[in-house]
Amino acid sequence: MTINALFFDVFGTLVDWRSSIAVRVPEIVNPLGFEIDGEAFADAWRAEYQPAMEVIRKGNRGYVKLDTLHRENLDRILPAFGLETLSAETKAQLNLVWHKLDTWPDVTEGLARLRQTCLLAPMSNGNISLMVDLARHNHIHWDAILGAEIAQDYKPKREVYLAGVAALGLEPAQCMMVAAHSSDLSAAHACGLKTAHVARPSEYGPAGGENAPLVPVDFAAADLKDLAKMLSGLK
Amino acid sequence: MTINALFFDVFGTLVDWRSSIAVRVPEIVNPLGFEIDGEAFADAWRAEYQPAMEVIRKGNRGYVKLDTLHRENLDRILPAFGLETLSAETKAQLNLVWHKLDTWPDVTEGLARLRQTCLLAPMSNGNISLMVDLARHNHIHWDAILGAEIAQDYKPKREVYLAGVAALGLEPAQCMMVAAHSSDLSAAHACGLKTAHVARPSEYGPAGGENAPLVPVDFAAADLKDLAKMLSGLK
Repeated sequence: MTINALFFDVFGTLVDWRSSIAVRVPEIVNPLGFEIDGEAFADAWRAEYQPAMEVIRKGNRGYVKLDTLHRENLDRILPAFGLETLSAETKAQLNLVWHKLDTWPDVTEGLARLRQTCLLAPMSNGNISLMVDLARHNHIHWDAILGAEIAQDYKPKREVYLAGVAALGLEPAQCMMVAAHSSDLSAAHACGLKTAHVARPSEYGPAGGENAPLVPVDFAAADLKDLAKMLSGLK
Repeated sequence: MTINALFFDVFGTLVDWRSSIAVRVPEIVNPLGFEIDGEAFADAWRAEYQPAMEVIRKGNRGYVKLDTLHRENLDRILPAFGLETLSAETKAQLNLVWHKLDTWPDVTEGLARLRQTCLLAPMSNGNISLMVDLARHNHIHWDAILGAEIAQDYKPKREVYLAGVAALGLEPAQCMMVAAHSSDLSAAHACGLKTAHVARPSEYGPAGGENAPLVPVDFAAADLKDLAKMLSGLK
């Protein structure tokens, strides 16, 4: 098995979106006189994520960047937290919290090891500038930024994975999708890509996360350092 | 003046395409029993570059990657060098020489310095995988790969520069185009980008290269290290 490129899901697989949102949002709004439950806010914001993309996947709306969807979703949840009076500047500042999410502890080093033998690219529903900012914030060296914005559609639509494969001039079987979500891996597998699952048992906080793949995969790793060890055995 | 992102022309500005092609092509074909003039071959191949893109810019053909145009242009010039009998494998190998061009001596270090204060992206007519391979070959850390393939058109069309600006979520005036070609800088300026000229007096070998900008620019640098010095004065 030769793997030339690794494609990474980002939210949940590389970055701990829930903890980052839960900490940063109160840091911004509490000094303005509010007192919010950061974890409840993170869960509420994320709950709007799939429905907003689904409208676009179904073709009922043209592609807009995830930054735009996050901003619209923010407006949708603010009233439930008594925050609907925030200024436009503060809302913009909140939306940028998604650009500064922290990685899980194994990620920066794990990616550096994986890059010794494979091309690395995010295959995320996040837009290019969001990926650029996350990489800077977390010292990640991507070879290219692929994903939703390149394809002008959202995962798990086939076009997104295949646009990434085509951009690198490779065949699907030369690429491997790495994700903590079986649905993402299942869709990538259906396009002919190899698949690797990474366990993120605390992605959703007390609600857990995928400890193990729910579908057949080529590799099931505890984290990215573990995956790097598994792949080094191939060469 | 605040510059958030630097966009780079690649062929000629960052990589010495002519010398690399002139050396590598004979290395591939001469052992097969040919004896070609590498510099004449490089000039002939490059001469087909602008006309091939012009068909696409004018809308007479849909976008295809530069890899495809290079391969077609190769077929066009092979007979003049007595090489029309080369195998498909050798032709594919020749086409990949464009993915392994060497940078000018100041580039790797100059880009590393510039990256301390700005986002860096190629704004090239080369396709994504070509840019990925050049970056690996020359130890360049891009924040994102922008350019023709993102825009599905070729510079100097406005759409190419503006697609790059939009992908980073910036305004044109927050971005600066860096190139050794005044025509590229002139087109970027017309889109509202800042401009920096880099002198590459030997790009075309004995035929020279642009020693200085032929149009007004924001910065005129001797090389990328010189540009890094100029920009460090801004902060």
